[in-house]
Amino acid sequence: MSDAATNPIRFRIRHTMLPVGDIERSVDFYTRLLGMRVLRRRADPAGGRNIAYVGYGEEAHTTVLELIATDGQAVEPWTGHIAIAVSDLRTLCARLQADGVTFAMPLKAIDNGTSRLQANIYDPDRFLIELNELAE
Amino acid sequence: MSDAATNPIRFRIRHTMLPVGDIERSVDFYTRLLGMRVLRRRADPAGGRNIAYVGYGEEAHTTVLELIATDGQAVEPWTGHIAIAVSDLRTLCARLQADGVTFAMPLKAIDNGTSRLQANIYDPDRFLIELNELAE
Repeated sequence: MSDAATNPIRFRIRHTMLPVGDIERSVDFYTRLLGMRVLRRRADPAGGRNIAYVGYGEEAHTTVLELIATDGQAVEPWTGHIAIAVSDLRTLCARLQADGVTFAMPLKAIDNGTSRLQANIYDPDRFLIELNELAE
Repeated sequence: MSDAATNPIRFRIRHTMLPVGDIERSVDFYTRLLGMRVLRRRADPAGGRNIAYVGYGEEAHTTVLELIATDGQAVEPWTGHIAIAVSDLRTLCARLQADGVTFAMPLKAIDNGTSRLQANIYDPDRFLIELNELAE
């Protein structure tokens, strides 16, 4: 009986943790440019860590990002990515370009069944962020 | 006017993408052991990719995981993690142990203000998964 589906355990994805180089630089990026809110902060002076939770909804109900900066610890490259749906991607991309954000893929029309516009950008630690304006 | 908060653009985190070595091995792990459902699959034969979306709710409303296996592409280590809230972590951990899952940190009581039990496990590609039984 190792099949989770037969058992009443309840699950929820709380967050994706990204290790970052500078907590304030990342908070600025995700709030000012990508519209997230700071939901919670905590410090761990003993571990040399500064931690911020950012997202679009309450932590109790939505999946958020946990950003952790650790003193003296370099950020490793990441081959994954975060995807964010955006209601008006043209307007957002114009704003991101004006702010000097680096694009991994410029805004373009796509037709993959779910999205009609896509752009890929790098966050301050060069983590890839996929931005989609969804079809319908 | 680069402050996203003053503008009606709407955002939502769609998924976190994890590159995996074997799509069926990862789908089995996240569905059978961690209770997710397969929400969508797509193949990209030209790109040698197999893609599965897994999660606890509909893609239109919750943040899910996008698992991508790419032929001939090794999976790089990741220093981030995914955190999952679990309603009965003791039962789940017993099940995971019986299944031979590797623990990065065994089940232990904690008191950090949000969780009362925590365990950390590795997924099949050695990505870190934090499991929390939340306080209250």
